[in-house]
Amino acid sequence: MPPDAARRSDRSRRAILVAALELLEALGHSRLTIEAVAARAGVGKQTIYRWWPSKGPLLFDAFLEYGPAGADALPSGVPVVDLKRELRAAAEELAERRFDQVCRVLVHEERTDLVTLLLMPRRMALEERLRTAQRLGEVRADVDVSAAAELLLGPVYQRWFLRTAPLTGEFADAVVDLVLRALTG
Amino acid sequence: MPPDAARRSDRSRRAILVAALELLEALGHSRLTIEAVAARAGVGKQTIYRWWPSKGPLLFDAFLEYGPAGADALPSGVPVVDLKRELRAAAEELAERRFDQVCRVLVHEERTDLVTLLLMPRRMALEERLRTAQRLGEVRADVDVSAAAELLLGPVYQRWFLRTAPLTGEFADAVVDLVLRALTG
Repeated sequence: MPPDAARRSDRSRRAILVAALELLEALGHSRLTIEAVAARAGVGKQTIYRWWPSKGPLLFDAFLEYGPAGADALPSGVPVVDLKRELRAAAEELAERRFDQVCRVLVHEERTDLVTLLLMPRRMALEERLRTAQRLGEVRADVDVSAAAELLLGPVYQRWFLRTAPLTGEFADAVVDLVLRALTG
Repeated sequence: MPPDAARRSDRSRRAILVAALELLEALGHSRLTIEAVAARAGVGKQTIYRWWPSKGPLLFDAFLEYGPAGADALPSGVPVVDLKRELRAAAEELAERRFDQVCRVLVHEERTDLVTLLLMPRRMALEERLRTAQRLGEVRADVDVSAAAELLLGPVYQRWFLRTAPLTGEFADAVVDLVLRALTG
Protein backbone atom coordinates (compact mmCIF):
# COMPACT_ATOMS: atom_id res chain seq x y z
CA MET A 1 0.00 0.00 0.00
CA PRO A 2 1.44 3.44 -0.86
CA PRO A 3 2.09 5.57 2.26
CA ASP A 4 -0.92 7.85 1.63
CA ALA A 5 -3.37 4.98 1.27
CA ALA A 6 -1.96 3.32 4.39
CA ARG A 7 -2.45 6.55 6.34
CA ARG A 8 -6.03 6.89 5.10
CA SER A 9 -6.76 3.29 5.94
CA ASP A 10 -5.36 3.69 9.43
CA ARG A 11 -7.41 6.86 9.93
CA SER A 12 -10.59 5.03 8.87
CA ARG A 13 -9.83 2.16 11.18
CA ARG A 14 -9.42 4.45 14.16
CA ALA A 15 -12.56 6.41 13.27
CA ILE A 16 -14.55 3.16 13.11
CA LEU A 17 -13.29 1.88 16.47
CA VAL A 18 -13.96 5.17 18.24
CA ALA A 19 -17.42 5.48 16.64
CA ALA A 20 -18.28 1.91 17.66
CA LEU A 21 -17.36 2.53 21.28
CA GLU A 22 -19.22 5.84 21.44
CA LEU A 23 -22.36 4.31 19.96
CA LEU A 24 -22.10 1.31 22.26
CA GLU A 25 -22.13 3.63 25.23
CA ALA A 26 -24.98 5.72 23.85
CA LEU A 27 -27.25 2.99 22.47
CA GLY A 28 -26.37 -0.29 24.17
CA HIS A 29 -25.37 -3.37 22.23
CA SER A 30 -28.76 -4.49 20.95
CA ARG A 31 -29.55 -1.18 19.24
CA LEU A 32 -26.06 -0.68 17.84
CA THR A 33 -25.84 -1.37 14.10
CA ILE A 34 -22.93 -1.58 11.67
CA GLU A 35 -24.76 1.02 9.53
CA ALA A 36 -24.75 3.52 12.38
CA VAL A 37 -21.06 2.94 13.05
CA ALA A 38 -20.27 3.44 9.37
CA ALA A 39 -22.27 6.67 9.22
CA ARG A 40 -20.65 8.08 12.33
CA ALA A 41 -17.15 7.14 11.19
CA GLY A 42 -17.79 8.53 7.68
CA VAL A 43 -16.99 5.27 5.91
CA GLY A 44 -19.00 2.76 3.90
CA LYS A 45 -20.51 -0.32 5.55
CA GLN A 46 -18.36 -2.53 3.33
CA THR A 47 -15.21 -0.97 4.75
CA ILE A 48 -16.23 -2.23 8.17
CA TYR A 49 -17.16 -5.70 6.92
CA ARG A 50 -13.81 -5.93 5.12
CA TRP A 51 -12.10 -5.83 8.51
CA TRP A 52 -14.66 -7.33 10.92
CA PRO A 53 -17.25 -10.08 10.33
CA SER A 54 -19.77 -8.79 12.91
CA LYS A 55 -20.38 -6.43 15.82
CA GLY A 56 -18.67 -8.65 18.39
CA PRO A 57 -15.11 -8.71 17.04
CA LEU A 58 -15.39 -5.02 16.07
CA LEU A 59 -16.36 -4.04 19.63
CA PHE A 60 -13.70 -6.33 21.01
CA ASP A 61 -10.97 -4.49 19.08
CA ALA A 62 -12.51 -1.12 19.94
CA PHE A 63 -12.52 -1.95 23.61
CA LEU A 64 -8.95 -3.24 23.61
CA GLU A 65 -7.67 -0.11 21.89
CA TYR A 66 -9.84 2.60 23.38
CA GLY A 67 -11.38 1.10 26.50
CA PRO A 68 -10.18 2.04 29.99
CA ALA A 69 -6.65 0.91 30.82
CA GLY A 70 -6.56 -1.17 33.99
CA ALA A 71 -4.10 0.55 36.31
CA ASP A 72 -3.80 -1.84 39.22
CA ALA A 73 -2.64 -1.14 42.73
CA LEU A 74 0.44 -3.00 43.90
CA PRO A 75 -0.38 -5.99 46.10
CA SER A 76 -0.15 -5.35 49.83
CA GLY A 77 1.18 -8.83 50.50
CA VAL A 78 -1.69 -9.61 52.91
CA PRO A 79 -3.60 -12.37 51.10
CA VAL A 80 -7.12 -11.61 52.31
CA VAL A 81 -6.69 -7.92 51.49
CA ASP A 82 -5.28 -8.59 48.05
CA LEU A 83 -7.87 -11.22 47.15
CA LYS A 84 -10.68 -8.88 48.13
CA ARG A 85 -9.12 -6.07 46.15
CA GLU A 86 -8.87 -8.28 43.07
CA LEU A 87 -12.40 -9.64 43.31
CA ARG A 88 -13.77 -6.14 43.84
CA ALA A 89 -11.86 -5.00 40.78
CA ALA A 90 -13.37 -7.86 38.77
CA ALA A 91 -16.86 -6.85 39.91
CA GLU A 92 -16.26 -3.18 39.10
CA GLU A 93 -14.90 -4.03 35.67
CA LEU A 94 -18.03 -6.04 34.84
CA ALA A 95 -20.21 -3.19 36.03
CA GLU A 96 -18.53 -0.79 33.59
CA ARG A 97 -21.10 -0.27 30.86
CA ARG A 98 -18.87 -0.71 27.81
CA PHE A 99 -17.10 -3.76 29.20
CA ASP A 100 -20.45 -5.29 30.13
CA GLN A 101 -21.92 -4.62 26.71
CA VAL A 102 -18.91 -5.89 24.75
CA CYS A 103 -18.95 -9.13 26.75
CA ARG A 104 -22.68 -9.57 26.17
CA VAL A 105 -22.42 -9.08 22.40
CA LEU A 106 -19.59 -11.60 22.27
CA VAL A 107 -21.53 -14.15 24.29
CA HIS A 108 -24.52 -13.72 22.03
CA GLU A 109 -22.32 -14.24 18.96
CA GLU A 110 -20.91 -17.38 20.63
CA ARG A 111 -17.46 -15.79 20.73
CA THR A 112 -16.73 -16.83 24.29
CA ASP A 113 -13.08 -17.24 23.25
CA LEU A 114 -12.93 -13.43 23.02
CA VAL A 115 -14.90 -12.94 26.25
CA THR A 116 -12.40 -15.19 27.97
CA LEU A 117 -9.56 -13.04 26.63
CA LEU A 118 -11.23 -9.92 28.04
CA LEU A 119 -11.71 -11.58 31.42
CA MET A 120 -8.26 -13.18 31.47
CA PRO A 121 -6.15 -10.38 33.03
CA ARG A 122 -8.32 -10.34 36.19
CA ARG A 123 -8.29 -14.10 36.40
CA MET A 124 -4.50 -14.23 36.06
CA ALA A 125 -4.09 -11.57 38.75
CA LEU A 126 -6.39 -13.51 41.06
CA GLU A 127 -4.46 -16.73 40.51
CA GLU A 128 -1.22 -14.85 41.21
CA ARG A 129 -2.66 -13.63 44.54
CA LEU A 130 -3.75 -17.18 45.37
CA ARG A 131 -0.25 -18.49 44.66
CA THR A 132 1.20 -15.85 46.96
CA ALA A 133 -1.29 -16.88 49.66
CA GLN A 134 -0.17 -20.46 49.14
CA ARG A 135 3.51 -19.52 49.56
CA LEU A 136 2.61 -17.72 52.79
CA GLY A 137 0.76 -20.81 54.04
CA GLU A 138 -2.64 -19.10 54.08
CA VAL A 139 -3.99 -21.39 51.38
CA ARG A 140 -3.37 -25.14 51.61
CA ALA A 141 -0.58 -26.45 49.39
CA ASP A 142 -2.84 -29.02 47.72
CA VAL A 143 -5.41 -26.45 46.52
CA ASP A 144 -5.72 -26.18 42.74
CA VAL A 145 -5.25 -22.47 42.12
CA SER A 146 -7.29 -22.52 38.95
CA ALA A 147 -10.27 -24.23 40.66
CA ALA A 148 -10.02 -21.77 43.52
CA ALA A 149 -10.16 -18.86 41.07
CA GLU A 150 -13.33 -20.31 39.55
CA LEU A 151 -14.85 -20.60 43.00
CA LEU A 152 -14.15 -16.93 43.67
CA LEU A 153 -15.19 -15.61 40.27
CA GLY A 154 -18.21 -17.88 39.74
CA PRO A 155 -20.62 -16.10 42.10
CA VAL A 156 -19.48 -12.70 40.78
CA TYR A 157 -19.96 -13.72 37.16
CA GLN A 158 -23.34 -15.23 38.03
CA ARG A 159 -24.64 -11.98 39.49
CA TRP A 160 -23.26 -10.07 36.55
CA PHE A 161 -24.63 -12.34 33.88
CA LEU A 162 -28.04 -13.07 35.37
CA ARG A 163 -28.38 -9.73 37.14
CA THR A 164 -29.85 -11.66 40.07
CA ALA A 165 -28.60 -9.22 42.68
CA PRO A 166 -26.42 -6.09 42.86
CA LEU A 167 -22.74 -6.65 42.21
CA THR A 168 -21.42 -4.82 45.26
CA GLY A 169 -18.01 -4.69 46.87
CA GLU A 170 -19.53 -6.15 50.03
CA PHE A 171 -20.68 -9.17 48.08
CA ALA A 172 -17.17 -9.68 46.64
CA ASP A 173 -15.72 -9.46 50.15
CA ALA A 174 -18.23 -12.00 51.49
CA VAL A 175 -17.31 -14.45 48.71
CA VAL A 176 -13.61 -14.12 49.52
CA ASP A 177 -14.27 -14.67 53.24
CA LEU A 178 -16.36 -17.77 52.57
CA VAL A 179 -14.05 -19.28 49.97
CA LEU A 180 -10.95 -18.66 52.07
CA ARG A 181 -12.47 -20.88 54.76
CA ALA A 182 -12.50 -23.66 52.20
CA LEU A 183 -8.90 -23.10 51.19
CA THR A 184 -7.17 -22.77 54.54
CA GLY A 185 -6.27 -25.10 57.37
CA MET B 1 -65.18 -15.79 22.75
CA PRO B 2 -67.62 -18.37 21.34
CA PRO B 3 -66.60 -21.98 22.14
CA ASP B 4 -65.47 -22.75 18.58
CA ALA B 5 -63.23 -19.68 18.37
CA ALA B 6 -61.78 -20.48 21.78
CA ARG B 7 -60.96 -24.01 20.62
CA ARG B 8 -59.33 -22.75 17.44
CA SER B 9 -57.36 -20.22 19.40
CA ASP B 10 -56.16 -22.84 21.85
CA ARG B 11 -55.16 -25.13 18.97
CA SER B 12 -53.15 -22.33 17.35
CA ARG B 13 -51.45 -21.55 20.61
CA ARG B 14 -50.35 -25.14 21.09
CA ALA B 15 -49.20 -25.44 17.48
CA ILE B 16 -47.08 -22.31 17.89
CA LEU B 17 -45.43 -23.48 21.11
CA VAL B 18 -44.62 -26.92 19.74
CA ALA B 19 -43.26 -25.44 16.49
CA ALA B 20 -41.11 -22.98 18.42
CA LEU B 21 -39.53 -25.72 20.48
CA GLU B 22 -38.93 -27.97 17.48
CA LEU B 23 -37.29 -25.18 15.53
CA LEU B 24 -35.21 -24.17 18.52
CA GLU B 25 -33.82 -27.66 18.70
CA ALA B 26 -33.21 -27.85 14.96
CA LEU B 27 -31.83 -24.37 14.29
CA GLY B 28 -30.53 -22.93 17.56
CA HIS B 29 -31.74 -19.64 18.95
CA SER B 30 -29.91 -17.21 16.71
CA ARG B 31 -31.29 -18.68 13.48
CA LEU B 32 -34.82 -19.14 14.79
CA THR B 33 -37.26 -16.55 13.44
CA ILE B 34 -40.87 -15.72 14.26
CA GLU B 35 -41.61 -16.13 10.53
CA ALA B 36 -40.38 -19.72 10.58
CA VAL B 37 -42.41 -20.54 13.69
CA ALA B 38 -45.53 -19.05 12.08
CA ALA B 39 -45.01 -21.04 8.88
CA ARG B 40 -44.47 -24.31 10.72
CA ALA B 41 -47.48 -23.75 12.98
CA GLY B 42 -49.66 -22.72 10.06
CA VAL B 43 -50.57 -19.32 11.50
CA GLY B 44 -49.86 -15.74 10.56
CA LYS B 45 -46.92 -13.86 12.09
CA GLN B 46 -49.34 -11.39 13.64
CA THR B 47 -51.06 -14.18 15.57
CA ILE B 48 -47.76 -14.86 17.31
CA TYR B 49 -47.05 -11.19 17.99
CA ARG B 50 -50.54 -10.81 19.44
CA TRP B 51 -49.58 -13.21 22.21
CA TRP B 52 -45.81 -12.76 22.56
CA PRO B 53 -43.66 -9.62 22.08
CA SER B 54 -40.50 -11.49 20.99
CA LYS B 55 -38.72 -14.83 20.74
CA GLY B 56 -37.70 -14.94 24.40
CA PRO B 57 -41.11 -14.99 26.11
CA LEU B 58 -42.48 -17.30 23.37
CA LEU B 59 -39.69 -19.83 23.97
CA PHE B 60 -40.09 -19.44 27.71
CA ASP B 61 -43.77 -20.47 27.50
CA ALA B 62 -42.96 -23.26 25.04
CA PHE B 63 -40.32 -24.67 27.34
CA LEU B 64 -42.55 -24.50 30.42
CA GLU B 65 -45.38 -26.30 28.66
CA TYR B 66 -43.53 -28.78 26.46
CA GLY B 67 -40.01 -28.97 27.84
CA PRO B 68 -38.80 -31.97 29.86
CA ALA B 69 -40.48 -32.39 33.24
CA GLY B 70 -37.96 -32.54 36.06
CA ALA B 71 -38.58 -35.82 37.85
CA ASP B 72 -36.31 -35.64 40.84
CA ALA B 73 -34.97 -38.44 42.98
CA LEU B 74 -35.93 -38.37 46.65
CA PRO B 75 -33.15 -37.03 48.87
CA SER B 76 -31.02 -39.70 50.54
CA GLY B 77 -30.67 -37.65 53.70
CA VAL B 78 -26.86 -37.69 53.47
CA PRO B 79 -26.01 -34.01 52.85
CA VAL B 80 -22.90 -34.43 50.71
CA VAL B 81 -24.65 -37.01 48.52
CA ASP B 82 -27.77 -34.89 48.09
CA LEU B 83 -25.88 -31.67 47.41
CA LYS B 84 -23.79 -33.40 44.75
CA ARG B 85 -26.90 -34.87 43.19
CA GLU B 86 -28.56 -31.45 43.05
CA LEU B 87 -25.55 -29.66 41.63
CA ARG B 88 -25.08 -32.39 39.01
CA ALA B 89 -28.76 -32.03 38.11
CA ALA B 90 -28.29 -28.28 37.69
CA ALA B 91 -25.30 -28.86 35.40
CA GLU B 92 -27.17 -31.46 33.33
CA GLU B 93 -30.18 -29.20 32.98
CA LEU B 94 -28.01 -26.37 31.63
CA ALA B 95 -26.38 -28.77 29.20
CA GLU B 96 -29.77 -29.72 27.74
CA ARG B 97 -29.88 -27.97 24.38
CA ARG B 98 -33.35 -26.46 24.57
CA PHE B 99 -32.94 -25.25 28.14
CA ASP B 100 -29.56 -23.74 27.26
CA GLN B 101 -30.94 -22.00 24.18
CA VAL B 102 -34.06 -20.63 25.89
CA CYS B 103 -31.91 -19.17 28.68
CA ARG B 104 -29.52 -17.59 26.18
CA VAL B 105 -32.30 -15.92 24.18
CA LEU B 106 -33.78 -14.55 27.39
CA VAL B 107 -30.43 -13.20 28.55
CA HIS B 108 -29.90 -11.55 25.19
CA GLU B 109 -33.34 -9.95 25.39
CA GLU B 110 -32.49 -8.72 28.91
CA ARG B 111 -35.29 -10.89 30.36
CA THR B 112 -33.20 -12.24 33.20
CA ASP B 113 -36.38 -12.22 35.31
CA LEU B 114 -37.57 -15.13 33.18
CA VAL B 115 -34.17 -16.87 33.24
CA THR B 116 -34.27 -16.65 37.00
CA LEU B 117 -37.70 -18.30 36.99
CA LEU B 118 -36.36 -21.14 34.87
CA LEU B 119 -33.39 -21.61 37.17
CA MET B 120 -35.40 -21.21 40.36
CA PRO B 121 -36.58 -24.82 40.98
CA ARG B 122 -32.97 -26.09 41.11
CA ARG B 123 -31.94 -23.25 43.34
CA MET B 124 -34.82 -23.89 45.73
CA ALA B 125 -34.02 -27.61 45.87
CA LEU B 126 -30.37 -26.81 46.59
CA GLU B 127 -31.32 -24.42 49.39
CA GLU B 128 -33.61 -27.09 50.81
CA ARG B 129 -30.68 -29.57 50.87
CA LEU B 130 -28.50 -26.96 52.56
CA ARG B 131 -31.13 -26.38 55.23
CA THR B 132 -31.31 -30.13 55.87
CA ALA B 133 -27.51 -30.21 56.16
CA GLN B 134 -27.76 -27.36 58.63
CA ARG B 135 -30.32 -29.23 60.75
CA LEU B 136 -28.01 -32.24 60.76
CA GLY B 137 -25.12 -30.06 61.90
CA GLU B 138 -23.08 -30.60 58.73
CA VAL B 139 -23.34 -26.96 57.76
CA ARG B 140 -22.71 -24.27 60.38
CA ALA B 141 -25.83 -22.69 61.84
CA ASP B 142 -24.67 -19.15 60.96
CA VAL B 143 -24.28 -19.88 57.23
CA ASP B 144 -26.62 -17.88 54.98
CA VAL B 145 -28.27 -20.60 52.89
CA SER B 146 -28.89 -18.27 49.98
CA ALA B 147 -25.23 -17.14 49.85
CA ALA B 148 -24.13 -20.77 50.07
CA ALA B 149 -26.35 -21.66 47.11
CA GLU B 150 -24.75 -18.87 45.09
CA LEU B 151 -21.33 -20.22 45.98
CA LEU B 152 -22.29 -23.67 44.71
CA LEU B 153 -24.10 -22.55 41.58
CA GLY B 154 -21.73 -19.71 40.61
CA PRO B 155 -18.92 -21.84 39.21
CA VAL B 156 -21.42 -24.08 37.39
CA TYR B 157 -23.22 -21.13 35.82
CA GLN B 158 -19.88 -19.60 34.87
CA ARG B 159 -18.79 -22.67 32.94
CA TRP B 160 -22.17 -22.88 31.29
CA PHE B 161 -22.41 -19.26 30.32
CA LEU B 162 -18.83 -18.66 29.23
CA ARG B 163 -18.22 -22.21 28.03
CA THR B 164 -14.77 -21.95 29.62
CA ALA B 165 -14.55 -25.67 30.38
CA PRO B 166 -16.74 -28.77 30.17
CA LEU B 167 -19.66 -28.86 32.58
CA THR B 168 -19.04 -32.35 33.94
CA GLY B 169 -20.45 -34.18 36.93
CA GLU B 170 -16.92 -34.43 38.34
CA PHE B 171 -16.66 -30.67 38.28
CA ALA B 172 -19.96 -30.31 40.15
CA ASP B 173 -18.75 -32.82 42.76
CA ALA B 174 -15.46 -30.95 43.19
CA VAL B 175 -17.33 -27.68 43.76
CA VAL B 176 -19.51 -29.30 46.44
CA ASP B 177 -16.46 -30.80 48.18
CA LEU B 178 -14.65 -27.45 48.20
CA VAL B 179 -17.62 -25.37 49.27
CA LEU B 180 -18.61 -27.79 52.03
CA ARG B 181 -15.21 -27.19 53.59
CA ALA B 182 -16.17 -23.53 53.84
CA LEU B 183 -19.54 -24.29 55.40
CA THR B 184 -18.64 -26.85 58.03
CA GLY B 185 -16.84 -26.81 61.35
